[in-house]
Amino acid sequence: MAQINGSTKDRSNLIPFSSRLREGRALAQDVWSIFNAANLPHDCINLGQGYMNFAPPEWIQEAANEALGTVSASHYSHPRGRPRLREALKKYYEPMIGRTLNTEKEILVTSGANEGQYSVFVAFLEEGDEVIMFEPFFDQYLPSVTFNGGKPVYVPLHPDTTSHKTTSNDWVVDFEELRRAITSRTKMIIVNTPHNPVGKVFTQTELEKIAALAEEFNLLIMSDEVYDTLTFDDKEHVRIATLPGMWDRTVTVGSAGKMFNATGYRVGWLEAAAAGLEQIVERKFLEKQRREYSERRQVLIDCFDSLGLKYTRPEGSYFILLDIGAITWPEDYPFPESVKGRGRDFLACWYIATEFGVSSIPVSEFYCEEHVSIGERYARFAFCKDVETLRQAACRLQNLRSVIKTDA
Amino acid sequence: MAQINGSTKDRSNLIPFSSRLREGRALAQDVWSIFNAANLPHDCINLGQGYMNFAPPEWIQEAANEALGTVSASHYSHPRGRPRLREALKKYYEPMIGRTLNTEKEILVTSGANEGQYSVFVAFLEEGDEVIMFEPFFDQYLPSVTFNGGKPVYVPLHPDTTSHKTTSNDWVVDFEELRRAITSRTKMIIVNTPHNPVGKVFTQTELEKIAALAEEFNLLIMSDEVYDTLTFDDKEHVRIATLPGMWDRTVTVGSAGKMFNATGYRVGWLEAAAAGLEQIVERKFLEKQRREYSERRQVLIDCFDSLGLKYTRPEGSYFILLDIGAITWPEDYPFPESVKGRGRDFLACWYIATEFGVSSIPVSEFYCEEHVSIGERYARFAFCKDVETLRQAACRLQNLRSVIKTDA
Repeated sequence: MAQINGSTKDRSNLIPFSSRLREGRALAQDVWSIFNAANLPHDCINLGQGYMNFAPPEWIQEAANEALGTVSASHYSHPRGRPRLREALKKYYEPMIGRTLNTEKEILVTSGANEGQYSVFVAFLEEGDEVIMFEPFFDQYLPSVTFNGGKPVYVPLHPDTTSHKTTSNDWVVDFEELRRAITSRTKMIIVNTPHNPVGKVFTQTELEKIAALAEEFNLLIMSDEVYDTLTFDDKEHVRIATLPGMWDRTVTVGSAGKMFNATGYRVGWLEAAAAGLEQIVERKFLEKQRREYSERRQVLIDCFDSLGLKYTRPEGSYFILLDIGAITWPEDYPFPESVKGRGRDFLACWYIATEFGVSSIPVSEFYCEEHVSIGERYARFAFCKDVETLRQAACRLQNLRSVIKTDA
Repeated sequence: MAQINGSTKDRSNLIPFSSRLREGRALAQDVWSIFNAANLPHDCINLGQGYMNFAPPEWIQEAANEALGTVSASHYSHPRGRPRLREALKKYYEPMIGRTLNTEKEILVTSGANEGQYSVFVAFLEEGDEVIMFEPFFDQYLPSVTFNGGKPVYVPLHPDTTSHKTTSNDWVVDFEELRRAITSRTKMIIVNTPHNPVGKVFTQTELEKIAALAEEFNLLIMSDEVYDTLTFDDKEHVRIATLPGMWDRTVTVGSAGKMFNATGYRVGWLEAAAAGLEQIVERKFLEKQRREYSERRQVLIDCFDSLGLKYTRPEGSYFILLDIGAITWPEDYPFPESVKGRGRDFLACWYIATEFGVSSIPVSEFYCEEHVSIGERYARFAFCKDVETLRQAACRLQNLRSVIKTDA
């Protein structure tokens, strides 16, 4: 733990923060701070940030308790991760990947997937290297890339805005646009599948096209697959690292927190993740979990359908994008300064949270400034909550009917 | 967790690691890897790395277990640290620091002290900024500074090599040398008290001199005080942040892992640290812990005294530096490649671990290349082990008698 002495204001004429902190959005109030529970009505149902309101499975908790009772698991871990955990990762992933994994050179345990991604940028980026990311993008990529000297280059996923029923698969890459985004300074493409916040599960064909460009221009792939165990409707999760020629140019990042409903466990020291992976097949844990999440997803889908609102049906992840184009509010509604001047989605999310008691996250935060107009059509609702909470949220959202434009 | 695909060798003609990884010692095999248990005799007593071979106190384990049983402690923490923990830190530190702490702006919880220190460098360093560190220095400062564009500048602590009985207080700063090391690019001085590996607890006078230079040249202080609860012989730990004028230019870093014998707990999510701080006074935990560590320290001191070997008596931390100048070994001893061409201390530590069954850490690793000759006189022995293990180690070390030069 660190104490940081003195407030930002007090020390502004002393020694400034480094330029990388002052550039871009690094010090700006981010969406997670604005839509923080502390700023919203106390009884607001939080479908904003993607964390569960239920505990990890009991057998995972028991494994954690057991580890806490041992001397070795209470002290420094091997820098690459505890051997037991790396061995469990090897056994779990080998059949899926179709090759033998070397626990010394091919598996690294980090303190959360965020640190894993940051490590990839530390390891490979030179000052000025360009990193292509598909919009919308998980907002943590941006500071992690720029802190390491990288320059983000944005390629939007294009949503289908015409048809009423949209699935996450209707958000598509324009591959000519992707090719045009590549320059002599491009070092890396970030792939995120299943995608946060769209829920898109990239198809084999899409990944093959990305792979072909990576081969042609000698690019690395950072493949963020933290929602790999959360796909629906029998949608197949394809790993880009397994495509021909891609193994040596891909770093795949996974997450025990997403896998075991334990977003706060940082796997750096916890043997619970090892126990989890060792028993995951035998316990048919993922099959059960997918069924549960499908049921949770359905609560929000039914709600939006009954309201006649457009949304993107997610094939993976635990998020659903609601098209908020039809939601209206009084012109003189007293919005706080923090959401004024941001996208229309910031206003909509604030209005829905404050007046209807369900919080969500505005999606323009996942876009660069130039492309805010694409993202501001959507609000992201997390369904990693228990069914009863989601039903309550759906019940409250029924009141939106009174503020929906019927011609939208 | 992240999988890194492909070995370093396979991809060497593909895309290189970033230059910051290739520069300096970043990719070199570090001392922790060379003196890893896996490379040493399996029954070697490990007094190398500073982790305990006993568990955290039971009441800390119970608090951890309790936290694991709750939903909220299993999920994402507040980015600045759980409110309960920040509140406990405030209450614990306020009386010591003599001022009111703001939990929103002056306390930050990080995933280990290492991350806390790294964050300071991220926050303040510009490319080419100079950071002064006293040698020997905790080796993790080096990559953390250089990864963030900083340039390390080394000022050695000068040991007393003449008298037979040395305490950690006999390692002194030459303040004229420190002044000469300051340039127009100097941004920060790293202070480490109690000091790893020397065990030096900086005196108020020494800290005042450092503070005066910081004021004169407008410098920041990163004060690494992770061993603040481990001082001996009633030696007072002074916090540089509390000296006049220093509050606004100091970031102090502490460690729950050192405080509660739980080096593997990363406090990012763990409420056990909060429970620990809440109950620490009432339980007289630190008094008991200091007595136990004094007893542990005494086992090694008695051992070195009986052998007639010189060492530095530490006033703080859980390390003791043995002067290995008098230890000899056969000229044709079969040393592995990993320790050849390094300081004399690498050979001595390897020889002692392999032939006498007690591992320690060569201290030249804590010096820049230019100053290796100062550090290579010493081996660092950790006494954060139970007394029985230390007695066994002392017993084995008695066999060193046969390889000690008597004229040294």
